[in-house]
Amino acid sequence: MTQVGVQVRFAIIGAGRISQLHTENLTRYIPEAEVLVIADVDSAAAYETAQRFGVPHATGDPGEIFANDAIDAVAICSSTETHADFIIEAARAGKHVFCEKPIALDLGAVDAALAAVEESGVKLQIGFNRRFDPNFRGLRDAVRSGEVGEPYLLQITSRDPAPPPLSYVERSGGLFLDMTIHDFDMARFLLDDEIEEVSARGAVRVDPAIGEAGDIDTAVVTVRYRSGVLGVITNSRQAVYGYDQRVEVLGSLGSVLCENETPDRLIRQTEAGIVQSKPLYFIFERYQQSYADELRSFIRSLREDTTVEVTGLDGRAPVVLALAAGISHREKRTVAISEITS
Amino acid sequence: MTQVGVQVRFAIIGAGRISQLHTENLTRYIPEAEVLVIADVDSAAAYETAQRFGVPHATGDPGEIFANDAIDAVAICSSTETHADFIIEAARAGKHVFCEKPIALDLGAVDAALAAVEESGVKLQIGFNRRFDPNFRGLRDAVRSGEVGEPYLLQITSRDPAPPPLSYVERSGGLFLDMTIHDFDMARFLLDDEIEEVSARGAVRVDPAIGEAGDIDTAVVTVRYRSGVLGVITNSRQAVYGYDQRVEVLGSLGSVLCENETPDRLIRQTEAGIVQSKPLYFIFERYQQSYADELRSFIRSLREDTTVEVTGLDGRAPVVLALAAGISHREKRTVAISEITS
Amino acid sequence: MTQVGVQVRFAIIGAGRISQLHTENLTRYIPEAEVLVIADVDSAAAYETAQRFGVPHATGDPGEIFANDAIDAVAICSSTETHADFIIEAARAGKHVFCEKPIALDLGAVDAALAAVEESGVKLQIGFNRRFDPNFRGLRDAVRSGEVGEPYLLQITSRDPAPPPLSYVERSGGLFLDMTIHDFDMARFLLDDEIEEVSARGAVRVDPAIGEAGDIDTAVVTVRYRSGVLGVITNSRQAVYGYDQRVEVLGSLGSVLCENETPDRLIRQTEAGIVQSKPLYFIFERYQQSYADELRSFIRSLREDTTVEVTGLDGRAPVVLALAAGISHREKRTVAISEITS
Amino acid sequence: MTQVGVQVRFAIIGAGRISQLHTENLTRYIPEAEVLVIADVDSAAAYETAQRFGVPHATGDPGEIFANDAIDAVAICSSTETHADFIIEAARAGKHVFCEKPIALDLGAVDAALAAVEESGVKLQIGFNRRFDPNFRGLRDAVRSGEVGEPYLLQITSRDPAPPPLSYVERSGGLFLDMTIHDFDMARFLLDDEIEEVSARGAVRVDPAIGEAGDIDTAVVTVRYRSGVLGVITNSRQAVYGYDQRVEVLGSLGSVLCENETPDRLIRQTEAGIVQSKPLYFIFERYQQSYADELRSFIRSLREDTTVEVTGLDGRAPVVLALAAGISHREKRTVAISEITS
Repeated sequence: MTQVGVQVRFAIIGAGRISQLHTENLTRYIPEAEVLVIADVDSAAAYETAQRFGVPHATGDPGEIFANDAIDAVAICSSTETHADFIIEAARAGKHVFCEKPIALDLGAVDAALAAVEESGVKLQIGFNRRFDPNFRGLRDAVRSGEVGEPYLLQITSRDPAPPPLSYVERSGGLFLDMTIHDFDMARFLLDDEIEEVSARGAVRVDPAIGEAGDIDTAVVTVRYRSGVLGVITNSRQAVYGYDQRVEVLGSLGSVLCENETPDRLIRQTEAGIVQSKPLYFIFERYQQSYADELRSFIRSLREDTTVEVTGLDGRAPVVLALAAGISHREKRTVAISEITS
Repeated sequence: MTQVGVQVRFAIIGAGRISQLHTENLTRYIPEAEVLVIADVDSAAAYETAQRFGVPHATGDPGEIFANDAIDAVAICSSTETHADFIIEAARAGKHVFCEKPIALDLGAVDAALAAVEESGVKLQIGFNRRFDPNFRGLRDAVRSGEVGEPYLLQITSRDPAPPPLSYVERSGGLFLDMTIHDFDMARFLLDDEIEEVSARGAVRVDPAIGEAGDIDTAVVTVRYRSGVLGVITNSRQAVYGYDQRVEVLGSLGSVLCENETPDRLIRQTEAGIVQSKPLYFIFERYQQSYADELRSFIRSLREDTTVEVTGLDGRAPVVLALAAGISHREKRTVAISEITS
Repeated sequence: MTQVGVQVRFAIIGAGRISQLHTENLTRYIPEAEVLVIADVDSAAAYETAQRFGVPHATGDPGEIFANDAIDAVAICSSTETHADFIIEAARAGKHVFCEKPIALDLGAVDAALAAVEESGVKLQIGFNRRFDPNFRGLRDAVRSGEVGEPYLLQITSRDPAPPPLSYVERSGGLFLDMTIHDFDMARFLLDDEIEEVSARGAVRVDPAIGEAGDIDTAVVTVRYRSGVLGVITNSRQAVYGYDQRVEVLGSLGSVLCENETPDRLIRQTEAGIVQSKPLYFIFERYQQSYADELRSFIRSLREDTTVEVTGLDGRAPVVLALAAGISHREKRTVAISEITS
Repeated sequence: MTQVGVQVRFAIIGAGRISQLHTENLTRYIPEAEVLVIADVDSAAAYETAQRFGVPHATGDPGEIFANDAIDAVAICSSTETHADFIIEAARAGKHVFCEKPIALDLGAVDAALAAVEESGVKLQIGFNRRFDPNFRGLRDAVRSGEVGEPYLLQITSRDPAPPPLSYVERSGGLFLDMTIHDFDMARFLLDDEIEEVSARGAVRVDPAIGEAGDIDTAVVTVRYRSGVLGVITNSRQAVYGYDQRVEVLGSLGSVLCENETPDRLIRQTEAGIVQSKPLYFIFERYQQSYADELRSFIRSLREDTTVEVTGLDGRAPVVLALAAGISHREKRTVAISEITS
């Protein structure tokens, strides 16, 4: 396993939207990082991204990365079905891994990847970037500090501005594994507690084509934590006014909630009403800062040899919860997490 | 059945808190009503309330009312277990009935009461006063007018400021029949749709004594309407900052939501933060106006011989839903409404 | 001077909008009051209002009132130019007086009226109803209790939804005496302090016809209190989104401010933005409750023989301030109040 | 005058707080800029700042800069009394100038500096960074696009969280030249109009020591634009809850206002009230982004040879207004701008 120097030397796998975001953060805003190579099976895309951000090398063969002794860490930004294998390869090559979520849609693949990481001793951080959003961090601090008292109930409202293309829906693993998974992670992040039971109900309300593709676009998921705290996550693939991301924790001393971020604080008082600006449009607008901060945190863990803030088990748990939600939705019953994991 | 004159002549059964509220509204703020008598098995209480509001007669024997030809309508404000029998007696005596919710905790009793009403031809209105709150009425209008587009998801957050006394809890029929019942009615009121399935999870978080009394104090209830719309109701018996009553409907054109009412619009900017006033404390503060408005509506129905705005079936449906929620909670499964009603 | 009995017996002078409001409050919502007669030079209007509210007598001759021994108190709701004379007549006849603001547009007339009241010993309350609004009362309490600390600065934003008819503008005495006068009273009410200096700037922005009528429709008035606290009042005759009535007091411990009241708490989240309801439309919607409460306070003062909450001097002071503002605007200089009063 | 290349090569004069901010932005976040040297009479400070941001050279002699042919542009961040002379030297040396506000506290010095710039043909941009804040830019766009209709009234509430040290107050030129000057610029920026008259009232409310130093800490300044629009600026040196920066423009179609920015969107619902986070603490927190954006704009003007967004006349005008405000406050009268400039 590589010994990290003054600067952490990264290879990026994938050259899509999220790869570009991470590359921009690593090359422009994080002096402690250096990106040596971008790999994508579409080598033209790899080359273009590399050039755009001044990355010295691009390749169409990710295998090159694992053989390259100059590389300390790999950021896996390729499509979901490749994550687990790349984690395994990177672990075997002694490279630390930052991997986009989810690890895999299949629990066997997740476990194989985690086993390889475990064996090799490299560090693995999962890209649940919302954990680094200052709002949710503040909310979690309020819970941890005892400010809300004994927790009673968690409520997460999570709505996309518009549904993804059907081609995406078909490969996504379904709403629970693609969208709710972030909210499951948030539900785990905010409370020092583990979810034991999931009860989910889904519906097709936004677009019948989503239903025809075998997925749902609207859902309500109730969770029960070990402590007995209840939580509820509501999802919709379409809120035409923008990305709606509200979270609230109620406890014995009151509630702390997080409203949507807006691009400005302008208020228009007109004959039509008193109008505030809409929420920031979508993931990249809303969580912009958290993407840089999760990488800073990962780099800090590498340099200081500390535990990463989002572990492989943190990556596994929401997959389990999403699988449980799927069963609950289909079988119309509460599913115990122990059913999935044992 | 009595023919209603210029003024509707009421008898009130019960002399407790809600009875006093209705009596105050009928005697002070509704010129189209007159209260002739207040009956309570505690005749001293009946007498005291009568005197306080200038009601000419008080009695310890509710039976007197039904024999009194001068009475047009009866407002049943006594304890829940007496509602159904009083409805039956009133119907047989040809008196119109305004009855506090719930009709009964037992579906057989509910159906007996409704049958008696049906047979007699008197009008029966159930005291779901929140339907007359201008906020929820505005929200419903927004749904009906098509302003939210095709509905996707309904969210009701409903929290009491403090749990009731244990003695009350023990006789309440449980959280679903005592507290969620109002939210079930709201869920039915806001959408032109019927609920087909209920999935409920409850917990004891506020006070272990509530659990020892066989009840829960925290709940998440997911409903599925005939159209496929999903809804979720969250309940807590304790929100220390006051009565939290927020409702939102999301649809294809956006969402309309209703925030809490506050006693004033003062904002304090201090070193501790930017502080708004807390929500109105509880039911009587929050829904004050709606109590008078539901009676005005009832009286209008009597005088104009139109259908009441909250029918006996509107009183029955939330009881069914609450019973389904109880089963769902205990059996950890989704319960179809058809299981209860058939 | 009449001895007030269980019920205070009122005569109303004037039968216009404000008269009807007071009559409605006195006859319907204030059991401690009785209205015996309504007088208006337009006797048909007097008769109509009397009939509408069940007032037993109407007259076209206000003189009748003063000769009527059964009358305890007179509510003067006629046009401004008649106020001072009616106060004098009522005082001489030993009737207590509730008088709409302003007492008069001319300081000589004001002083004559106050002298007559002083001499007779009757009570006089001026209709600055906003002092009874729970928001402003709460704000004042926050100042008095020391919650804002040592006051620094007062800001009043006061905007009408639409300008009055030109015919009204012409007889109004001008913006300072017609509109700012309420804000001057608020400025005096909120702080335990007296205004010593006024600096005013006015403009015609809303409608040139208002300028042609010799008036202004937009103004900024700066005041300096004896203590050195500064205050600023901004006025506009037109805010198309409704009646905008915001007040803030900044002090050493922070600020307390009062936002607009709205008819409901609905929020619409749409593609156009996040839309709240507009402020309550105008005076009668916004200050509805305060009109009843000022009369309740007046009646309490009569029955308990205590000082009224809004005295004749409270009626005089804003007239002085408005006159000073007019001079300041015309002469482009700060005007000391002592210039006006000495 | 230097020809600007791919990267604009800067020298920074001054090594204090604002210099460090600009140096950080130029070296880290603006790839189109390069900082070659930092000069400060305190050469140790210059050296330290240079080292911190990787600037290759530091000097105790600003004169070096003007002789250095490699320098394209000078950012003047030294104390106010040195601004005008450095502008003159830079202009004579053919260096473009970015200068912190104010140009000078004395109009003669301002005019000398502007004349030198005029003569040399270099570009001069004044550091009124708030013009680059997205909120105020959005507000101005709303005014320009006709969204508020015909403007009536502008209101600026501007409060510091805490007064500066007395030593600063003594050299500041007074509240109008030190604090209100930003609001004067904002008042000019938001409307396409020029201010013709100023009426100011000041007071000492926060700290008597400020008064003893010959300054004020609280002010209300009314302005009248050429078009007749009125504006009002209120200032306080102390708002204990944070930096309060609210602006509103009212016009014939409604008002657009800008509320305070907060560090997060958390709301705490507790027994004490419903608590939002306080505004961002002060200038550097609130206007962080605008500091980088003003430099980006300056660099764009240099590279594209276009007019700067904040000209020398934009730097002069608020000084004139501040001087007029001082006279108005002392002489208790409205001051025409023509009195100062002619």
